[in-house]
Amino acid sequence: MALILTFPESAERSRKLASDLGIESVSTEYKVFPDGEDYVRVPVDVKDIDVIVLSDLYPDQDRKIFRTLLLLDTLRDLGARRIVLVCPYLAYSRQDRRFRDGEAVSLKTLIKIFENLGADYIVTVDVHKPQAFSGSRAECINVEPFEKYARYVKENIGEDVIVLSPDIGSLWRAEKVAKILGTSYDYFEKHRDRVTGQITMRPRQVDVRDKKVLIIDDIIATGGTIREATKILKNMGAREIHVIATHCQFLNNADKKIIDEGVKSIICTDTIECNHSKITVFDIIAEHLRRLIT
Amino acid sequence: MALILTFPESAERSRKLASDLGIESVSTEYKVFPDGEDYVRVPVDVKDIDVIVLSDLYPDQDRKIFRTLLLLDTLRDLGARRIVLVCPYLAYSRQDRRFRDGEAVSLKTLIKIFENLGADYIVTVDVHKPQAFSGSRAECINVEPFEKYARYVKENIGEDVIVLSPDIGSLWRAEKVAKILGTSYDYFEKHRDRVTGQITMRPRQVDVRDKKVLIIDDIIATGGTIREATKILKNMGAREIHVIATHCQFLNNADKKIIDEGVKSIICTDTIECNHSKITVFDIIAEHLRRLIT
Repeated sequence: MALILTFPESAERSRKLASDLGIESVSTEYKVFPDGEDYVRVPVDVKDIDVIVLSDLYPDQDRKIFRTLLLLDTLRDLGARRIVLVCPYLAYSRQDRRFRDGEAVSLKTLIKIFENLGADYIVTVDVHKPQAFSGSRAECINVEPFEKYARYVKENIGEDVIVLSPDIGSLWRAEKVAKILGTSYDYFEKHRDRVTGQITMRPRQVDVRDKKVLIIDDIIATGGTIREATKILKNMGAREIHVIATHCQFLNNADKKIIDEGVKSIICTDTIECNHSKITVFDIIAEHLRRLIT
Repeated sequence: MALILTFPESAERSRKLASDLGIESVSTEYKVFPDGEDYVRVPVDVKDIDVIVLSDLYPDQDRKIFRTLLLLDTLRDLGARRIVLVCPYLAYSRQDRRFRDGEAVSLKTLIKIFENLGADYIVTVDVHKPQAFSGSRAECINVEPFEKYARYVKENIGEDVIVLSPDIGSLWRAEKVAKILGTSYDYFEKHRDRVTGQITMRPRQVDVRDKKVLIIDDIIATGGTIREATKILKNMGAREIHVIATHCQFLNNADKKIIDEGVKSIICTDTIECNHSKITVFDIIAEHLRRLIT
Protein backbone atom coordinates (compact mmCIF):
# COMPACT_ATOMS: atom_id res chain seq x y z
CA MET A 1 0.00 0.00 0.00
CA ALA A 2 1.30 3.42 -0.96
CA LEU A 3 -0.04 6.91 -1.56
CA ILE A 4 1.28 10.32 -2.48
CA LEU A 5 0.78 13.25 -0.14
CA THR A 6 1.40 16.76 -1.39
CA PHE A 7 0.57 20.38 -0.70
CA PRO A 8 -2.40 22.00 -2.43
CA GLU A 9 -0.48 23.90 -5.12
CA SER A 10 1.27 20.73 -6.29
CA ALA A 11 -1.96 18.73 -6.47
CA GLU A 12 -2.08 18.57 -10.26
CA ARG A 13 1.43 17.24 -10.78
CA SER A 14 0.94 14.91 -7.84
CA ARG A 15 -2.17 13.43 -9.46
CA LYS A 16 -0.25 12.80 -12.68
CA LEU A 17 2.57 11.12 -10.82
CA ALA A 18 0.11 9.04 -8.78
CA SER A 19 -1.76 7.98 -11.88
CA ASP A 20 1.54 6.88 -13.46
CA LEU A 21 2.15 4.75 -10.38
CA GLY A 22 -1.41 3.50 -10.06
CA ILE A 23 -1.80 4.88 -6.54
CA GLU A 24 -3.82 7.64 -4.91
CA SER A 25 -2.80 11.28 -4.52
CA VAL A 26 -3.98 13.18 -1.44
CA SER A 27 -3.57 16.86 -0.60
CA THR A 28 -2.29 17.72 2.84
CA GLU A 29 -4.61 20.14 4.62
CA TYR A 30 -2.55 23.30 4.68
CA LYS A 31 -3.10 26.91 5.63
CA VAL A 32 -1.18 29.89 6.96
CA PHE A 33 -2.40 31.47 10.19
CA PRO A 34 -2.79 35.28 10.32
CA ASP A 35 0.51 35.56 12.20
CA GLY A 36 2.34 33.72 9.41
CA GLU A 37 2.61 30.24 10.92
CA ASP A 38 1.87 27.13 8.90
CA TYR A 39 -0.84 24.64 9.74
CA VAL A 40 -0.45 21.10 8.42
CA ARG A 41 -2.85 18.20 8.74
CA VAL A 42 -2.79 14.73 7.20
CA PRO A 43 -6.40 14.00 6.27
CA VAL A 44 -6.08 10.25 5.70
CA ASP A 45 -4.99 7.16 7.58
CA VAL A 46 -1.34 6.47 6.79
CA LYS A 47 -0.66 3.75 9.34
CA ASP A 48 1.62 1.07 7.86
CA ILE A 49 1.41 2.69 4.45
CA ASP A 50 4.32 3.80 2.27
CA VAL A 51 3.95 7.52 1.82
CA ILE A 52 5.51 9.49 -1.00
CA VAL A 53 5.69 13.18 -0.06
CA LEU A 54 5.85 15.39 -3.13
CA SER A 55 7.20 18.72 -1.91
CA ASP A 56 8.01 21.60 -4.21
CA LEU A 57 10.50 23.84 -2.42
CA TYR A 58 10.61 26.88 -4.68
CA PRO A 59 9.84 29.74 -4.38
CA ASP A 60 9.62 30.74 -0.68
CA GLN A 61 12.01 27.96 0.27
CA ASP A 62 12.09 28.35 4.05
CA ARG A 63 8.31 28.22 4.40
CA LYS A 64 8.08 25.21 2.10
CA ILE A 65 10.89 23.47 3.92
CA PHE A 66 9.32 24.06 7.32
CA ARG A 67 5.87 22.82 6.35
CA THR A 68 7.56 19.74 4.86
CA LEU A 69 9.29 19.15 8.20
CA LEU A 70 5.91 19.39 9.95
CA LEU A 71 4.46 16.89 7.50
CA LEU A 72 7.33 14.40 7.84
CA ASP A 73 7.21 14.40 11.62
CA THR A 74 3.44 14.00 11.59
CA LEU A 75 3.64 11.05 9.20
CA ARG A 76 6.10 9.35 11.55
CA ASP A 77 3.77 10.03 14.50
CA LEU A 78 0.88 8.53 12.57
CA GLY A 79 2.76 5.33 11.87
CA ALA A 80 3.55 5.61 8.15
CA ARG A 81 5.68 2.69 7.00
CA ARG A 82 8.32 4.12 4.71
CA ILE A 83 8.54 7.78 3.81
CA VAL A 84 9.85 8.79 0.41
CA LEU A 85 10.46 12.52 0.15
CA VAL A 86 10.40 13.79 -3.43
CA CYS A 87 11.73 17.33 -3.92
CA PRO A 88 12.09 17.80 -7.68
CA TYR A 89 14.11 20.94 -6.96
CA LEU A 90 16.21 20.62 -3.83
CA ALA A 91 16.56 24.00 -2.18
CA TYR A 92 19.95 25.06 -0.82
CA SER A 93 21.71 22.57 -3.08
CA ARG A 94 24.41 25.03 -4.10
CA GLN A 95 25.56 25.53 -0.51
CA ASP A 96 26.86 21.97 -0.34
CA ARG A 97 30.20 22.64 1.29
CA ARG A 98 32.03 25.14 3.49
CA PHE A 99 33.50 27.56 0.96
CA ARG A 100 34.78 29.79 3.75
CA ASP A 101 35.55 28.98 7.40
CA GLY A 102 32.49 29.14 9.59
CA GLU A 103 29.90 28.88 6.82
CA ALA A 104 26.76 26.85 7.20
CA VAL A 105 26.70 23.86 4.88
CA SER A 106 23.02 24.45 4.33
CA LEU A 107 22.33 21.41 2.15
CA LYS A 108 23.89 19.08 4.69
CA THR A 109 21.76 20.58 7.47
CA LEU A 110 18.63 20.28 5.36
CA ILE A 111 19.24 16.63 4.52
CA LYS A 112 20.09 15.86 8.12
CA ILE A 113 16.77 17.31 9.29
CA PHE A 114 14.83 15.43 6.61
CA GLU A 115 16.51 12.21 7.75
CA ASN A 116 16.06 12.85 11.45
CA LEU A 117 12.37 13.49 11.00
CA GLY A 118 11.94 10.21 9.23
CA ALA A 119 12.54 10.46 5.49
CA ASP A 120 13.83 7.03 4.44
CA TYR A 121 14.46 8.13 0.85
CA ILE A 122 15.10 11.57 -0.60
CA VAL A 123 14.49 11.82 -4.33
CA THR A 124 15.52 14.86 -6.30
CA VAL A 125 16.40 15.75 -9.87
CA ASP A 126 19.86 16.74 -11.10
CA VAL A 127 21.25 17.94 -7.80
CA HIS A 128 24.03 20.52 -8.04
CA LYS A 129 26.74 18.05 -6.97
CA PRO A 130 25.70 14.41 -6.43
CA GLN A 131 28.72 13.93 -4.15
CA ALA A 132 26.91 16.10 -1.62
CA PHE A 133 24.72 13.09 -0.82
CA SER A 134 27.57 10.91 0.39
CA GLY A 135 27.33 10.22 4.08
CA SER A 136 23.57 10.63 4.26
CA ARG A 137 21.69 8.06 6.29
CA ALA A 138 18.62 8.36 4.10
CA GLU A 139 19.01 6.87 0.66
CA CYS A 140 19.35 9.87 -1.65
CA ILE A 141 18.35 9.31 -5.25
CA ASN A 142 19.46 11.78 -7.89
CA VAL A 143 17.21 11.46 -10.93
CA GLU A 144 19.20 12.29 -14.07
CA PRO A 145 17.35 13.84 -16.99
CA PHE A 146 20.28 13.68 -19.43
CA GLU A 147 18.92 11.02 -21.77
CA LYS A 148 15.78 13.08 -22.17
CA TYR A 149 17.91 16.13 -22.87
CA ALA A 150 19.81 14.30 -25.61
CA ARG A 151 16.57 13.06 -27.16
CA TYR A 152 15.06 16.54 -27.06
CA VAL A 153 18.16 18.11 -28.59
CA LYS A 154 18.35 15.49 -31.33
CA GLU A 155 14.72 16.05 -32.28
CA ASN A 156 14.60 19.82 -31.99
CA ILE A 157 18.09 21.19 -32.54
CA GLY A 158 20.03 18.44 -34.30
CA GLU A 159 22.90 16.12 -33.47
CA ASP A 160 25.69 18.39 -34.72
CA VAL A 161 25.79 20.39 -31.52
CA ILE A 162 28.78 21.21 -29.34
CA VAL A 163 27.81 20.84 -25.69
CA LEU A 164 29.42 23.35 -23.34
CA SER A 165 29.24 23.71 -19.62
CA PRO A 166 29.71 27.23 -18.23
CA ASP A 167 32.30 25.99 -15.73
CA ILE A 168 34.23 22.87 -14.83
CA GLY A 169 31.66 21.98 -12.13
CA SER A 170 29.02 21.21 -14.73
CA LEU A 171 31.37 19.51 -17.20
CA TRP A 172 30.08 16.06 -16.30
CA ARG A 173 26.62 17.15 -17.44
CA ALA A 174 27.97 18.31 -20.80
CA GLU A 175 29.90 15.08 -21.12
CA LYS A 176 26.88 12.87 -20.43
CA VAL A 177 24.66 14.62 -22.95
CA ALA A 178 27.41 14.87 -25.60
CA LYS A 179 28.27 11.19 -25.29
CA ILE A 180 24.67 10.16 -25.88
CA LEU A 181 24.57 12.48 -28.91
CA GLY A 182 28.02 11.34 -30.09
CA THR A 183 29.23 14.93 -30.30
CA SER A 184 32.00 16.97 -28.68
CA TYR A 185 31.90 18.83 -25.37
CA ASP A 186 33.97 21.28 -23.42
CA TYR A 187 33.74 23.81 -20.60
CA PHE A 188 34.46 27.49 -20.13
CA GLU A 189 37.67 28.27 -18.32
CA LYS A 190 37.72 31.34 -16.15
CA HIS A 191 40.74 33.62 -15.95
CA ARG A 192 41.13 36.43 -13.48
CA ASP A 193 43.33 39.27 -14.70
CA ARG A 194 45.94 39.77 -12.00
CA VAL A 195 46.00 43.52 -12.46
CA THR A 196 42.41 44.53 -13.16
CA GLY A 197 40.79 41.61 -11.33
CA GLN A 198 38.45 41.20 -14.28
CA ILE A 199 37.25 37.69 -14.99
CA THR A 200 37.23 36.46 -18.57
CA MET A 201 35.95 33.09 -19.70
CA ARG A 202 36.33 31.08 -22.91
CA PRO A 203 35.86 27.50 -24.08
CA ARG A 204 38.96 25.58 -23.17
CA GLN A 205 39.75 23.88 -26.50
CA VAL A 206 36.80 23.50 -28.80
CA ASP A 207 36.26 25.69 -31.85
CA VAL A 208 32.68 26.95 -32.02
CA ARG A 209 32.96 28.94 -35.30
CA ASP A 210 29.85 28.32 -37.44
CA LYS A 211 28.73 25.63 -35.03
CA LYS A 212 25.53 25.08 -33.08
CA VAL A 213 26.29 25.27 -29.39
CA LEU A 214 24.29 23.99 -26.45
CA ILE A 215 25.13 25.45 -23.02
CA ILE A 216 24.11 23.12 -20.22
CA ASP A 217 23.78 23.81 -16.49
CA ASP A 218 21.71 22.68 -13.52
CA ILE A 219 20.18 25.95 -12.31
CA ILE A 220 19.59 29.29 -13.96
CA ALA A 221 19.10 31.94 -11.30
CA THR A 222 20.06 35.44 -12.49
CA GLY A 223 21.50 34.00 -15.70
CA GLY A 224 24.64 36.14 -15.50
CA THR A 225 27.03 33.33 -16.39
CA ILE A 226 24.88 32.16 -19.30
CA ARG A 227 24.73 35.66 -20.74
CA GLU A 228 28.46 36.10 -20.41
CA ALA A 229 29.05 32.75 -22.12
CA THR A 230 26.62 33.72 -24.89
CA LYS A 231 28.46 36.98 -25.59
CA ILE A 232 31.74 35.13 -25.90
CA LEU A 233 30.30 32.42 -28.14
CA LYS A 234 28.83 35.03 -30.47
CA ASN A 235 32.17 36.83 -30.65
CA MET A 236 33.79 33.53 -31.51
CA GLY A 237 31.37 33.10 -34.39
CA ALA A 238 28.99 30.44 -33.06
CA ARG A 239 26.08 29.92 -35.47
CA GLU A 240 23.31 29.14 -32.99
CA ILE A 241 23.29 29.13 -29.20
CA HIS A 242 20.81 27.08 -27.18
CA VAL A 243 20.59 26.76 -23.42
CA ILE A 244 19.38 23.78 -21.43
CA ALA A 245 19.03 23.82 -17.64
CA THR A 246 17.19 21.59 -15.25
CA HIS A 247 15.89 24.11 -12.73
CA CYS A 248 14.72 27.52 -13.90
CA GLN A 249 14.42 30.36 -11.43
CA PHE A 250 14.90 33.19 -13.94
CA LEU A 251 15.23 35.95 -11.36
CA ASN A 252 14.55 39.49 -12.61
CA ASN A 253 13.46 38.35 -16.08
CA ALA A 254 16.67 36.43 -16.57
CA ASP A 255 15.11 34.39 -19.40
CA LYS A 256 14.23 37.51 -21.38
CA LYS A 257 17.72 38.89 -20.87
CA ILE A 258 19.23 35.61 -22.06
CA ILE A 259 17.11 35.65 -25.20
CA ASP A 260 17.98 39.32 -25.78
CA GLU A 261 21.64 38.36 -25.61
CA GLY A 262 21.09 36.18 -28.67
CA VAL A 263 20.20 32.72 -27.36
CA LYS A 264 17.91 30.95 -29.82
CA SER A 265 16.10 28.70 -27.35
CA ILE A 266 15.97 27.98 -23.63
CA ILE A 267 14.96 24.51 -22.53
CA CYS A 268 14.09 23.66 -18.92
CA THR A 269 12.36 20.87 -17.08
CA ASP A 270 9.25 21.15 -14.96
CA THR A 271 10.98 20.76 -11.58
CA ILE A 272 10.11 24.44 -11.34
CA GLU A 273 7.36 25.24 -13.80
CA CYS A 274 7.99 28.10 -16.20
CA ASN A 275 7.44 29.14 -19.83
CA HIS A 276 10.51 27.17 -20.83
CA SER A 277 9.51 23.88 -19.13
CA LYS A 278 9.65 21.83 -22.31
CA ILE A 279 10.76 18.57 -20.71
CA THR A 280 8.94 16.74 -17.95
CA VAL A 281 10.91 14.85 -15.34
CA PHE A 282 7.92 13.27 -13.66
CA ASP A 283 7.97 10.17 -15.83
CA ILE A 284 11.55 9.44 -14.81
CA ILE A 285 10.77 10.23 -11.17
CA ALA A 286 7.92 7.71 -11.48
CA GLU A 287 10.34 5.04 -12.79
CA HIS A 288 12.47 5.43 -9.67
CA LEU A 289 9.49 5.49 -7.33
CA ARG A 290 8.05 2.35 -8.92
CA ARG A 291 11.11 0.45 -7.76
CA LEU A 292 10.84 1.84 -4.23
CA ILE A 293 7.19 1.14 -3.51
CA THR A 294 6.95 -2.39 -4.91
CA MET B 1 34.30 30.84 28.12
CA ALA B 2 30.99 31.91 26.61
CA LEU B 3 29.68 34.30 24.00
CA ILE B 4 26.37 35.29 22.48
CA LEU B 5 25.75 34.86 18.78
CA THR B 6 22.79 36.55 17.18
CA PHE B 7 21.45 37.76 13.84
CA PRO B 8 22.07 41.34 12.72
CA GLU B 9 18.65 42.78 13.57
CA SER B 10 18.90 41.53 17.17
CA ALA B 11 22.39 42.94 17.69
CA GLU B 12 21.33 45.73 20.04
CA ARG B 13 19.38 43.55 22.47
CA SER B 14 22.10 40.95 22.24
CA ARG B 15 24.74 43.49 23.29
CA LYS B 16 22.67 44.50 26.30
CA LEU B 17 22.22 40.88 27.33
CA ALA B 18 25.92 40.18 26.81
CA SER B 19 26.91 43.21 28.83
CA ASP B 20 24.64 42.01 31.67
CA LEU B 21 26.48 38.69 31.58
CA GLY B 22 29.94 40.19 31.12
CA ILE B 23 30.54 38.31 27.88
CA GLU B 24 30.92 39.24 24.22
CA SER B 25 28.12 39.55 21.66
CA VAL B 26 28.85 38.64 18.05
CA SER B 27 26.62 39.00 15.00
CA THR B 28 26.30 36.01 12.72
CA GLU B 29 27.12 36.90 9.12
CA TYR B 30 23.75 36.67 7.46
CA LYS B 31 22.30 37.49 4.07
CA VAL B 32 19.54 36.37 1.74
CA PHE B 33 20.54 35.27 -1.75
CA PRO B 34 18.59 36.66 -4.75
CA ASP B 35 16.63 33.40 -4.99
CA GLY B 36 15.48 33.73 -1.37
CA GLU B 37 17.86 31.32 0.35
CA ASP B 38 19.62 32.21 3.59
CA TYR B 39 23.36 32.39 4.01
CA VAL B 40 24.76 31.96 7.50
CA ARG B 41 28.36 32.20 8.64
CA VAL B 42 29.88 32.13 12.11
CA PRO B 43 32.65 34.74 12.00
CA VAL B 44 34.47 33.72 15.20
CA ASP B 45 36.15 30.68 16.67
CA VAL B 46 33.64 28.83 18.87
CA LYS B 47 35.62 25.67 19.55
CA ASP B 48 35.06 24.49 23.15
CA ILE B 49 33.13 27.65 23.93
CA ASP B 50 29.62 27.85 25.40
CA VAL B 51 27.51 29.63 22.82
CA ILE B 52 24.26 31.40 23.58
CA VAL B 53 22.24 31.84 20.39
CA LEU B 54 19.78 34.71 20.68
CA SER B 55 17.21 34.12 17.98
CA ASP B 56 14.13 36.26 17.49
CA LEU B 57 11.57 34.19 15.61
CA TYR B 58 8.92 36.79 14.80
CA PRO B 59 7.87 37.97 12.27
CA ASP B 60 8.66 35.75 9.25
CA GLN B 61 8.87 32.71 11.49
CA ASP B 62 9.83 30.03 8.96
CA ARG B 63 12.78 32.00 7.61
CA LYS B 64 13.99 32.81 11.11
CA ILE B 65 13.58 29.22 12.20
CA PHE B 66 15.49 27.88 9.22
CA ARG B 67 18.43 30.24 9.57
CA THR B 68 18.55 29.29 13.26
CA LEU B 69 18.75 25.63 12.27
CA LEU B 70 21.63 26.46 9.93
CA LEU B 71 23.40 28.29 12.74
CA LEU B 72 22.90 25.50 15.31
CA ASP B 73 24.23 22.80 12.98
CA THR B 74 27.21 24.96 12.06
CA LEU B 75 28.05 25.60 15.71
CA ARG B 76 28.05 21.85 16.35
CA ASP B 77 30.31 21.34 13.32
CA LEU B 78 32.67 23.98 14.62
CA GLY B 79 32.99 22.29 18.00
CA ALA B 80 31.04 24.62 20.28
CA ARG B 81 30.85 23.22 23.82
CA ARG B 82 27.32 23.79 25.02
CA ILE B 83 24.67 25.53 22.94
CA VAL B 84 21.98 27.56 24.68
CA LEU B 85 19.22 28.62 22.31
CA VAL B 86 17.32 31.68 23.51
CA CYS B 87 14.06 32.41 21.66
CA PRO B 88 12.29 35.08 23.70
CA TYR B 89 9.17 34.38 21.63
CA LEU B 90 8.87 30.75 20.69
CA ALA B 91 7.10 30.45 17.33
CA TYR B 92 4.45 27.77 16.87
CA SER B 93 3.91 27.54 20.62
CA ARG B 94 0.13 27.47 20.32
CA GLN B 95 0.17 24.34 18.17
CA ASP B 96 1.42 22.28 21.10
CA ARG B 97 -0.88 19.30 20.73
CA ARG B 98 -2.98 17.44 18.19
CA PHE B 99 -6.34 19.18 18.42
CA ARG B 100 -7.71 17.12 15.52
CA ASP B 101 -6.59 13.73 14.20
CA GLY B 102 -3.73 14.03 11.76
CA GLU B 103 -2.59 17.50 12.77
CA ALA B 104 1.05 18.44 12.98
CA VAL B 105 2.12 19.19 16.54
CA SER B 106 4.27 21.99 15.23
CA LEU B 107 5.89 22.98 18.52
CA LYS B 108 6.97 19.41 19.21
CA THR B 109 8.54 19.17 15.75
CA LEU B 110 10.32 22.49 16.20
CA ILE B 111 11.79 21.53 19.58
CA LYS B 112 12.81 18.13 18.26
CA ILE B 113 14.75 19.74 15.41
CA PHE B 114 16.41 22.24 17.75
CA GLU B 115 17.48 19.33 19.98
CA ASN B 116 18.63 17.12 17.13
CA LEU B 117 20.80 19.88 15.73
CA GLY B 118 22.51 20.34 19.04
CA ALA B 119 20.69 22.79 21.31
CA ASP B 120 21.45 21.66 24.86
CA TYR B 121 19.16 24.25 26.41
CA ILE B 122 16.16 26.06 24.98
CA VAL B 123 15.22 29.23 26.83
CA THR B 124 12.00 31.07 26.13
CA VAL B 125 9.65 33.43 27.93
CA ASP B 126 6.13 32.57 29.08
CA VAL B 127 5.46 29.74 26.68
CA HIS B 128 1.81 29.11 25.86
CA LYS B 129 1.68 25.88 27.90
CA PRO B 130 4.79 24.91 29.89
CA GLN B 131 3.62 21.26 29.87
CA ALA B 132 4.47 21.23 26.16
CA PHE B 133 8.14 20.97 27.17
CA SER B 134 7.75 17.65 28.96
CA GLY B 135 9.56 14.88 27.19
CA SER B 136 12.14 17.14 25.55
CA ARG B 137 15.71 15.94 25.57
CA ALA B 138 17.07 19.47 25.66
CA GLU B 139 16.54 21.25 28.94
CA CYS B 140 13.73 23.72 28.25
CA ILE B 141 13.60 26.76 30.48
CA ASN B 142 10.44 28.84 30.63
CA VAL B 143 11.28 32.31 31.95
CA GLU B 144 8.29 33.68 33.89
CA PRO B 145 7.76 37.43 33.91
CA PHE B 146 4.91 37.39 36.44
CA GLU B 147 6.72 39.03 39.33
CA LYS B 148 7.66 41.89 37.05
CA TYR B 149 4.02 42.13 35.95
CA ALA B 150 2.85 42.38 39.55
CA ARG B 151 5.43 45.05 40.32
CA TYR B 152 4.48 47.05 37.22
CA VAL B 153 0.77 46.82 38.01
CA LYS B 154 1.30 47.84 41.64
CA GLU B 155 3.32 50.89 40.60
CA ASN B 156 1.24 51.99 37.62
CA ILE B 157 -2.31 50.76 38.11
CA GLY B 158 -2.65 49.99 41.80
CA GLU B 159 -3.10 46.90 43.95
CA ASP B 160 -6.90 46.88 43.95
CA VAL B 161 -7.12 45.13 40.60
CA ILE B 162 -9.07 42.03 39.68
CA VAL B 163 -6.95 39.81 37.44
CA LEU B 164 -8.85 37.96 34.73
CA SER B 165 -7.71 35.48 32.17
CA PRO B 166 -9.71 35.35 28.93
CA ASP B 167 -10.03 31.56 29.18
CA ILE B 168 -9.28 28.71 31.55
CA GLY B 169 -5.99 27.99 29.75
CA SER B 170 -4.44 31.22 31.00
CA LEU B 171 -5.96 31.05 34.49
CA TRP B 172 -2.65 30.03 36.05
CA ARG B 173 -1.16 33.29 34.81
CA ALA B 174 -3.95 35.32 36.40
CA GLU B 175 -3.52 33.32 39.60
CA LYS B 176 0.24 33.90 39.79
CA VAL B 177 -0.02 37.65 39.31
CA ALA B 178 -3.05 38.00 41.61
CA LYS B 179 -1.38 36.05 44.40
CA ILE B 180 1.67 38.31 44.32
CA LEU B 181 -0.63 41.33 44.41
CA GLY B 182 -2.85 39.76 47.08
CA THR B 183 -5.95 40.36 44.98
CA SER B 184 -8.66 38.19 43.43
CA TYR B 185 -8.62 36.48 40.06
CA ASP B 186 -10.97 34.62 37.77
CA TYR B 187 -11.39 33.53 34.17
CA PHE B 188 -13.96 33.98 31.45
CA GLU B 189 -16.17 31.00 30.85
CA LYS B 190 -17.35 30.41 27.33
CA HIS B 191 -20.86 29.20 26.57
CA ARG B 192 -22.05 28.09 23.19
CA ASP B 193 -25.76 28.61 22.58
CA ARG B 194 -27.09 25.23 21.45
CA VAL B 195 -29.56 26.78 19.03
CA THR B 196 -27.78 29.78 17.54
CA GLY B 197 -24.23 28.45 18.00
CA GLN B 198 -23.23 31.87 19.29
CA ILE B 199 -20.47 31.96 21.86
CA THR B 200 -20.85 34.17 24.90
CA MET B 201 -18.29 34.63 27.62
CA ARG B 202 -18.41 36.06 31.12
CA PRO B 203 -16.30 36.03 34.26
CA ARG B 204 -17.12 32.88 36.16
CA GLN B 205 -17.77 34.26 39.65
CA VAL B 206 -16.12 37.56 40.32
CA ASP B 207 -18.06 40.85 40.39
CA VAL B 208 -16.27 43.55 38.39
CA ARG B 209 -18.70 46.43 38.99
CA ASP B 210 -16.77 49.65 39.71
CA LYS B 211 -13.55 47.67 39.86
CA LYS B 212 -10.25 47.98 38.05
CA VAL B 213 -9.70 44.89 35.92
CA LEU B 214 -6.52 43.50 34.43
CA ILE B 215 -6.87 41.00 31.59
CA ILE B 216 -3.81 38.79 31.28
CA ASP B 217 -2.75 36.50 28.43
CA ASP B 218 0.40 35.20 26.79
CA ILE B 219 -0.03 36.33 23.18
CA ILE B 220 -2.14 38.99 21.54
CA ALA B 221 -2.52 38.22 17.83
CA THR B 222 -5.69 39.66 16.33
CA GLY B 223 -6.92 40.66 19.78
CA GLY B 224 -10.44 39.35 19.12
CA THR B 225 -10.81 37.63 22.49
CA ILE B 226 -9.50 40.65 24.40
CA ARG B 227 -11.95 42.96 22.64
CA GLU B 228 -14.83 40.63 23.35
CA ALA B 229 -13.83 40.42 27.02
CA THR B 230 -13.55 44.21 27.18
CA LYS B 231 -17.08 44.70 25.83
CA ILE B 232 -18.46 42.35 28.44
CA LEU B 233 -16.52 43.96 31.28
CA LYS B 234 -17.76 47.40 30.28
CA ASN B 235 -21.34 46.14 30.17
CA MET B 236 -20.82 44.69 33.63
CA GLY B 237 -19.74 48.10 34.89
CA ALA B 238 -15.98 47.68 35.27
CA ARG B 239 -14.33 51.00 36.13
CA GLU B 240 -11.01 50.59 34.30
CA ILE B 241 -9.76 47.83 32.03
CA HIS B 242 -6.06 47.14 31.49
CA VAL B 243 -4.47 44.45 29.39
CA ILE B 244 -1.15 42.73 29.98
CA ALA B 245 0.32 40.18 27.55
CA THR B 246 3.80 38.81 27.14
CA HIS B 247 4.06 38.58 23.37
CA CYS B 248 2.49 41.27 21.20
CA GLN B 249 1.83 40.60 17.55
CA PHE B 250 -1.05 43.08 17.14
CA LEU B 251 -2.10 41.91 13.70
CA ASN B 252 -4.13 44.40 11.65
CA ASN B 253 -3.78 47.21 14.22
CA ALA B 254 -5.14 44.99 16.96
CA ASP B 255 -3.72 47.32 19.63
CA LYS B 256 -5.58 50.34 18.26
CA LYS B 257 -8.79 48.32 18.09
CA ILE B 258 -8.34 47.19 21.69
CA ILE B 259 -7.83 50.78 22.86
CA ASP B 260 -10.87 51.89 20.80
CA GLU B 261 -12.92 49.26 22.60
CA GLY B 262 -12.21 51.10 25.86
CA VAL B 263 -9.05 49.53 27.29
CA LYS B 264 -7.12 52.10 29.30
CA SER B 265 -3.64 50.64 28.87
CA ILE B 266 -1.89 47.77 27.12
CA ILE B 267 1.28 46.42 28.66
CA CYS B 268 3.61 44.03 26.83
CA THR B 269 7.15 42.81 27.19
CA ASP B 270 9.94 43.21 24.69
CA THR B 271 10.05 39.58 23.51
CA ILE B 272 8.55 41.16 20.40
CA GLU B 273 9.26 44.86 20.40
CA CYS B 274 6.29 47.19 19.94
CA ASN B 275 4.88 50.49 21.20
CA HIS B 276 3.51 48.73 24.25
CA SER B 277 6.75 47.00 25.30
CA LYS B 278 6.84 48.56 28.75
CA ILE B 279 8.50 45.64 30.52
CA THR B 280 11.82 44.13 29.59
CA VAL B 281 12.39 40.41 30.05
CA PHE B 282 16.07 40.46 29.21
CA ASP B 283 17.18 40.99 32.81
CA ILE B 284 15.34 37.84 33.91
CA ILE B 285 16.64 35.93 30.89
CA ALA B 286 20.13 37.03 31.98
CA GLU B 287 19.54 35.64 35.50
CA HIS B 288 18.77 32.22 34.04
CA LEU B 289 21.68 32.32 31.62
CA ARG B 290 24.08 33.30 34.38
CA ARG B 291 23.38 29.99 36.09
CA LEU B 292 23.92 28.04 32.87
CA ILE B 293 27.22 29.47 31.74
CA THR B 294 29.06 29.49 35.07
